[in-house]
Amino acid sequence: MTQFRLTPTVAKLPSTVPFVGPETQERARGKPFDARLGANESVFGASPRALAAMAAADHWQYGDPENHDLKHALADHHGTTPDHIIVGEGIDGLLGYLARMMVAPGDTVVTSEGAYPTFNYHVAGFGGTLHKVPYLDDHEDPAALFAKAAEVNAKLVYLANPDNPMGTAHRGEDIVQSLQALPPQTLLLLDEAYVECAPEGTAVPLPPGDPRLIRLRTFSKVYGLAGARIGYGIGAPDLIAAFDRVRNHFGVNRAAQAGALAALEDTAWLAHVQAQIRSARARIVQIATDNGLTSLPSATNFVTIDCGADDALAKAVLDGLVARGIFIRMPFAAPQNRCIRVSCGTDLMMDAFAAALGPALRDAKKG
Amino acid sequence: MTQFRLTPTVAKLPSTVPFVGPETQERARGKPFDARLGANESVFGASPRALAAMAAADHWQYGDPENHDLKHALADHHGTTPDHIIVGEGIDGLLGYLARMMVAPGDTVVTSEGAYPTFNYHVAGFGGTLHKVPYLDDHEDPAALFAKAAEVNAKLVYLANPDNPMGTAHRGEDIVQSLQALPPQTLLLLDEAYVECAPEGTAVPLPPGDPRLIRLRTFSKVYGLAGARIGYGIGAPDLIAAFDRVRNHFGVNRAAQAGALAALEDTAWLAHVQAQIRSARARIVQIATDNGLTSLPSATNFVTIDCGADDALAKAVLDGLVARGIFIRMPFAAPQNRCIRVSCGTDLMMDAFAAALGPALRDAKKG
Repeated sequence: MTQFRLTPTVAKLPSTVPFVGPETQERARGKPFDARLGANESVFGASPRALAAMAAADHWQYGDPENHDLKHALADHHGTTPDHIIVGEGIDGLLGYLARMMVAPGDTVVTSEGAYPTFNYHVAGFGGTLHKVPYLDDHEDPAALFAKAAEVNAKLVYLANPDNPMGTAHRGEDIVQSLQALPPQTLLLLDEAYVECAPEGTAVPLPPGDPRLIRLRTFSKVYGLAGARIGYGIGAPDLIAAFDRVRNHFGVNRAAQAGALAALEDTAWLAHVQAQIRSARARIVQIATDNGLTSLPSATNFVTIDCGADDALAKAVLDGLVARGIFIRMPFAAPQNRCIRVSCGTDLMMDAFAAALGPALRDAKKG
Repeated sequence: MTQFRLTPTVAKLPSTVPFVGPETQERARGKPFDARLGANESVFGASPRALAAMAAADHWQYGDPENHDLKHALADHHGTTPDHIIVGEGIDGLLGYLARMMVAPGDTVVTSEGAYPTFNYHVAGFGGTLHKVPYLDDHEDPAALFAKAAEVNAKLVYLANPDNPMGTAHRGEDIVQSLQALPPQTLLLLDEAYVECAPEGTAVPLPPGDPRLIRLRTFSKVYGLAGARIGYGIGAPDLIAAFDRVRNHFGVNRAAQAGALAALEDTAWLAHVQAQIRSARARIVQIATDNGLTSLPSATNFVTIDCGADDALAKAVLDGLVARGIFIRMPFAAPQNRCIRVSCGTDLMMDAFAAALGPALRDAKKG
């Protein structure tokens, strides 16, 4: 018998994986996917300046534990001071730190049914109790989230704007309005991973130090650096300082620090990718329409397509696409799981998706 | 007032940094160091094949959450199966996971006075109580560690072999002997970060599935990939599987996965670096001798030099070296803090160290 004794909290947890990676599926099917459209990565890639900075990084040196240069650049970018910025190992890493900082066994947390599973994984991982509210017309429902937070005395409430997996968004000023109902004992965790893909006015128009929320951003989406594992939070200095109690100070890899800094500076590349995303979104919508399906309005780098029936049909369509070399995912909870979720791709990938959707749909309806 | 409520455990923690990075010191002094010899990084760099693999990585794609290819290669390397291997975000990341898995408030953990501070940071961070035993003749003292573990009913005991910051090592078979005194309720965390720098026979000659311990290895030292943040653990499958309860599944960056795999395969580069390390170690010893100082025997990629008096003198020597552009560190606890710790460097860096040590020592003795 192995000589380890887990904590009571960890002993109760399952060994689990929030998401199965496409590589796992590729190994199972014995060949790579033709189109990798399931993880909302940016197939358009990172800024060439970012790639050059990463290639030039001295990998033999530990990264700067202060993330000084990037933190200062981000502070400038957001018109604030570095003590409002925490840089971490992607939003996943920052979510883990936040859960650890705030969630002890029995603490309550609120999110939406079917929202980001990795957040739920971290909350459950520290013994927290999750309360979930349903989506409203395929949008996250701030009023219901904050009402539930008041009801259960939540320490944290999670809201993604734009939302994943539905791609829908609220206007920033509407979120600000709804914040009047946020209970004073609850911190809003506002996940803005996709905000650079969204229409003007989606980011909350609030000062970086607003004490009611922390905003999370990432270089994994529009900046094309998912593999580099780097993201950041914007919040009040006392909350930002608290990360230093728990974070892995040398956790951000050196190449990512250099790459993110260069990516942030390359606004021309950002605009280029944003245009590519708009174009690919329109293409996905068209492909859906061509197959008699409707799409949800998207403020992200993916489009959610309504398969028009239940989760069984959507799952069959997904399986049919995967079998035809198209990696996609679908929402986890009803009734959103009547949909499939398709990331923006290159023209070639969109062609492959277009060719596969009709047959996948036909087979699914026969099934 | 910011609307966050920390857990009772985190509320008691200080905002802290286990190590101040050299970049922080460089910003304070307004210029870069001439020789970066303080963090036991490998100035000889990573395998060119590893660097090429990292440059070719698709940074826009998330890494494989299973770390499949690297895990399989490591299993082959150690003559075992992949379920004995956990890949993580450097040893620091794996230490954090282990502390989280096993340490709840009030749990006891044993380490040596002056051993790796980041381990202590993680244990304290989960509310654990640390018990420390002194070094014995500048070596970690397994017998004392295991006796203390029995006395305090420790869940975990930490032992680095070779040791950091002293550079000394025990023979693997001596560790195996001493394991007879390891209490059955205690897991040994054997940190072998430097084992590839050590003489044959330093690694413990135990099967990978031995239930009494987990061994931690890294690509940060001899493999020259400190900035990439990747390491691994070797242990019994039930313990290895438990990491899936808490780890950040997508936490290892994609370039690091590719780089570590290539580094592991490039045994010629490993031999090259090992030779460089032996040569640089001899040079550091010679420089110390030239200045009337003695060195400790080193099984690592650094040499610990005895300044011959107390911590005040060692600190003055360190400050004098830093002022002369040489970044080094020193042990944290008495009586080991009579020493300074110098990482292996290139010939140019060793020349810079040689030129600076004499004046630094003279000033320190005057001071």
